[in-house]
Amino acid sequence: MNKTVLITGSTSGIGLGIARQFAEAGYNIMFHGLETDGAEIANQIGEKYNVKVAFSNANLLQSEAIEGLVNETIKIFGELHVLVNNAGIQFVSPIEEFPNSKYENIIAINMNAVFYASKAVWKQMKKQKFGRIINVSSVHGIRASEFKSAYVTAKHGVIGMTKVLALEGAPFNITCNAICPGYVKTPLVEGQIKDQAKVHHMTEDEVVEKVMLKKQAVKQFVPLEAIADMAILLAKDSSTTITGSSFVLDGGWSAQ
Amino acid sequence: MNKTVLITGSTSGIGLGIARQFAEAGYNIMFHGLETDGAEIANQIGEKYNVKVAFSNANLLQSEAIEGLVNETIKIFGELHVLVNNAGIQFVSPIEEFPNSKYENIIAINMNAVFYASKAVWKQMKKQKFGRIINVSSVHGIRASEFKSAYVTAKHGVIGMTKVLALEGAPFNITCNAICPGYVKTPLVEGQIKDQAKVHHMTEDEVVEKVMLKKQAVKQFVPLEAIADMAILLAKDSSTTITGSSFVLDGGWSAQ
Amino acid sequence: MNKTVLITGSTSGIGLGIARQFAEAGYNIMFHGLETDGAEIANQIGEKYNVKVAFSNANLLQSEAIEGLVNETIKIFGELHVLVNNAGIQFVSPIEEFPNSKYENIIAINMNAVFYASKAVWKQMKKQKFGRIINVSSVHGIRASEFKSAYVTAKHGVIGMTKVLALEGAPFNITCNAICPGYVKTPLVEGQIKDQAKVHHMTEDEVVEKVMLKKQAVKQFVPLEAIADMAILLAKDSSTTITGSSFVLDGGWSAQ
Amino acid sequence: MNKTVLITGSTSGIGLGIARQFAEAGYNIMFHGLETDGAEIANQIGEKYNVKVAFSNANLLQSEAIEGLVNETIKIFGELHVLVNNAGIQFVSPIEEFPNSKYENIIAINMNAVFYASKAVWKQMKKQKFGRIINVSSVHGIRASEFKSAYVTAKHGVIGMTKVLALEGAPFNITCNAICPGYVKTPLVEGQIKDQAKVHHMTEDEVVEKVMLKKQAVKQFVPLEAIADMAILLAKDSSTTITGSSFVLDGGWSAQ
Repeated sequence: MNKTVLITGSTSGIGLGIARQFAEAGYNIMFHGLETDGAEIANQIGEKYNVKVAFSNANLLQSEAIEGLVNETIKIFGELHVLVNNAGIQFVSPIEEFPNSKYENIIAINMNAVFYASKAVWKQMKKQKFGRIINVSSVHGIRASEFKSAYVTAKHGVIGMTKVLALEGAPFNITCNAICPGYVKTPLVEGQIKDQAKVHHMTEDEVVEKVMLKKQAVKQFVPLEAIADMAILLAKDSSTTITGSSFVLDGGWSAQ
Repeated sequence: MNKTVLITGSTSGIGLGIARQFAEAGYNIMFHGLETDGAEIANQIGEKYNVKVAFSNANLLQSEAIEGLVNETIKIFGELHVLVNNAGIQFVSPIEEFPNSKYENIIAINMNAVFYASKAVWKQMKKQKFGRIINVSSVHGIRASEFKSAYVTAKHGVIGMTKVLALEGAPFNITCNAICPGYVKTPLVEGQIKDQAKVHHMTEDEVVEKVMLKKQAVKQFVPLEAIADMAILLAKDSSTTITGSSFVLDGGWSAQ
Repeated sequence: MNKTVLITGSTSGIGLGIARQFAEAGYNIMFHGLETDGAEIANQIGEKYNVKVAFSNANLLQSEAIEGLVNETIKIFGELHVLVNNAGIQFVSPIEEFPNSKYENIIAINMNAVFYASKAVWKQMKKQKFGRIINVSSVHGIRASEFKSAYVTAKHGVIGMTKVLALEGAPFNITCNAICPGYVKTPLVEGQIKDQAKVHHMTEDEVVEKVMLKKQAVKQFVPLEAIADMAILLAKDSSTTITGSSFVLDGGWSAQ
Repeated sequence: MNKTVLITGSTSGIGLGIARQFAEAGYNIMFHGLETDGAEIANQIGEKYNVKVAFSNANLLQSEAIEGLVNETIKIFGELHVLVNNAGIQFVSPIEEFPNSKYENIIAINMNAVFYASKAVWKQMKKQKFGRIINVSSVHGIRASEFKSAYVTAKHGVIGMTKVLALEGAPFNITCNAICPGYVKTPLVEGQIKDQAKVHHMTEDEVVEKVMLKKQAVKQFVPLEAIADMAILLAKDSSTTITGSSFVLDGGWSAQ
């Protein structure tokens, strides 16, 4: 029988890339996202790869909605083997002017939602004696950039949470790891290019070359395929002893 | 003229230890804490070391109260050179049963309050062309223990925030660093001993030896003096190039 | 056409496990090791998976021999796409009594040989505009254990070298990464069990439970399959932006 | 009675800066270095601060000479409380053309000498139930720069060794820590400016601004005072629980 994966923020960007590859590998998928055509996106992938899919647009700002998302997944698919906490938002501003509401929302979506979702899946994964929690953090989970105080804080927080869940999950074959990509060309990053262009008073092209990939030694965006490959590897049965780690795919950014 | 330091959570434990040493070094001190005799504690130290002091019991759960605390400090002392974000709370529970409200409060006090306080001091520190933000994180800012998902998440988050503020402060001689102690015998830790005793079904003595200091190679609690020494060093004029780092005082815990 | 991989220390243990999986994936393999039946081991795998193989017992203590090993590989296979620096030795002793010759040999085999081999393959990989250097370091590349001063030093050194080679290789599509396993049951580890038993005055069974896997949250040895999976992923064409990182597979050891 | 400190490479640069501050704090000092007027430098400091001094030009490439240096120190001063492993050399070259002899010498001086010196002081420090080993590593002990494969490898190796010695020293009140400075303006760095200028085809001024301090957020060299302050703090009696850590003073380099 196919395993089931729930991927937050999977109707676009990195999450969609990961979903595609899990579908190809034969996993049933609970999609989640804010795209209005999310159900359609889910169904297309379900048909293409012949796997069972469902879709939810649960509001990750609310802990009850996150709990509901997990419960719905278990109800529909009967099991829940892999949770990919991928949904994220970004806002760029000097600390001095950073709006409190923007800070609070970034912490809520990028960090607290990981806590609520992981808490919600725990009982089921324990019962199954199998669970794989994969947190899509960022190179900003281990390094900082200026003007991103909320995002860097949240992503570092997720790295800490990853380690705790790894320790607590060890007796139950529940692993928890983080993937930390550098710059991937997603709608989120395309938005960042625009934002950074304003902050740095540059053209968008200059931002890509001089800001976005300035810190990567390899002057290419990280491909979706690399991130999805890593997630698939972490989800394997034989990956029981891979836990509590951060898998950094960043073109040499953090090596410097 | 004496420099001014604001220390959150300084009417007991680590914060009080830091305050004592800053007073001895001639700093004026804005005390903050929940002890009902906080004002008295502040005054005693002010008299003993002949420095100016004040006291606030601002509620760090509220961003407005934090902003108010900073503004009051600047109003009273005229300047604000050093901010020590020290206040913290703890709660221990398996993820599955971790109460949402406990999680939210730990994130609010241990992490979000650092953001709001740092944001609030920024303008003044920029104007002064001098600022020292010292975040009392923990070895749990870089390593995990089971049953501490909220605390470890918050403390890792603070490490990330520290790095961002270091980068943004660099042009203005504002530094930001974290101190990461292992186990210090404070009221907070004495509470943890009790909590852990319940979780692990041990006596309190066993908890100290087998749980608390199990991970430290050096079987002694970290003394307040060591933490305060480090804070004093970070606050120095000559420490302009010390920024964005974590100073780990943990008896060899994280080396293993 | 098949790609070619050179794996040092591949006639037993982790290296042999990696070799098997590369063979299965269709790589031609240059085996290397000290087993007297190394050529036979190589040929068996070559036949089983229908790939081209060769074998060398070059002495990794000598820089000329390492250079010779690389040149021989290029001569035999025409190309060299992947270098897996895997060979390693161990010795356990308190610093006070650590024999100088043991220290020197561990540094030579576990660290310097990585430098000489990487230097030797560089020109060919640049010419190919493709190279993947995979260093099998250890959780001891990021954490310490007592009585292993030479091993931990060498393994940390390799992590540093990995980062430099990643930066220098970036313009040429040469990546360099480290894999850091916890305890894997190999002949090397079986030897360590015996050594540690003496040092700690324990039976070998006690060593496994209380010493070897004491630091891992997951009480299982890391399987060869997990390490080989990771190496195969790092070697992929699409892994160009994965470089300078350490991939830690340690059962939650370093999370604590 | 004054404590005694042995500082390798203390007749110039960082080592001399550290020595000056230890002398000011009342330590007797064993100087070591290659400056032809080393004995004179030592005597001037001894007279100025009224402490006992001696000088050796032991060759750190030879393990016997290092052992001799330690034994001579103990013979002259009767005790040896603090060992500062500071001596270091540098060479800059692409991996492809890095001379083997340069690699071997950098590993020998910057890394192996730390092993031999620490091994040699161990018995005395155990007997004293007091020891402080302070390794002057570098931000290159935790991050890489291109063309510095030998230096980065050695400095990372020292970080590993530091952790092991911390663990082994814990029962005996022997601590071991590393200090990791960013760029300090020393004769070594002045040499690097020249070397990098050649490699990068820049003027020396451009190297300082665009290469040397490019990675530091704070655009100032790290002052000797900051490094010496940290060393003095680590040497304190009350620093028993500070061990196995790296103290990074890098102007925000590694935060990014």
